Amino acid sequence: MKITSLDQVPAVPMQMEGAVGVVKQVPLGKADGAPNFSFRVFTITPGGNTPYHIHDAEHLNYILEGEGVLVDAAGEQHPVKAGNFSMVVPNEKHQYRNTSTTEEFKFICAVPLAYE
Amino acid sequence: MKITSLDQVPAVPMQMEGAVGVVKQVPLGKADGAPNFSFRVFTITPGGNTPYHIHDAEHLNYILEGEGVLVDAAGEQHPVKAGNFSMVVPNEKHQYRNTSTTEEFKFICAVPLAYE
Repeated sequence: MKITSLDQVPAVPMQMEGAVGVVKQVPLGKADGAPNFSFRVFTITPGGNTPYHIHDAEHLNYILEGEGVLVDAAGEQHPVKAGNFSMVVPNEKHQYRNTSTTEEFKFICAVPLAYE
Repeated sequence: MKITSLDQVPAVPMQMEGAVGVVKQVPLGKADGAPNFSFRVFTITPGGNTPYHIHDAEHLNYILEGEGVLVDAAGEQHPVKAGNFSMVVPNEKHQYRNTSTTEEFKFICAVPLAYE
């Protein structure tokens, strides 16, 4: 059993190519003995974005703060904001962008453990 | 790709023995083509609780609203509130209780797909 909050979880810049202004935290994951999947949290600075990429793992997301867009494989932008749940299925090209000029965009991104 | 919010997701009373005042929603799951795990959301009315039970799947939780306790296998109560992340590992007896007399307690409960 573990109980934590984001102010207790280390935050590291996302190093992946194509990431702009993204910080990663892992409040629940491998290090805690999670058996199957991890809860990561990404914080995107105003104007920043995650990589526009594709991979064979899914994302299950919950938007914690702010507003932005989820870009689909065709390049279409779908608005998302705090309180939304979103899912990207395996092999679906995608990107999250923070569309605000002033506020952070923060979301839970759950993935199978191997992709933590 | 799916984007939704809780006001668009059907809510059904939790029928499991031992559940008191619990409503279940599944914003992301099997029906959406989730390949490995589901995001369920439980809302517990003031004074209500989930079953005090044990099973071989884990829970990865994020508290959306309210405050309550997570009861561990020894019966000890651990306070949890909006903004907390919590994890229950497989075969760990547990229960969530809403300790408020006025406010709902609402949380994401992610589980492997078979346990949706």
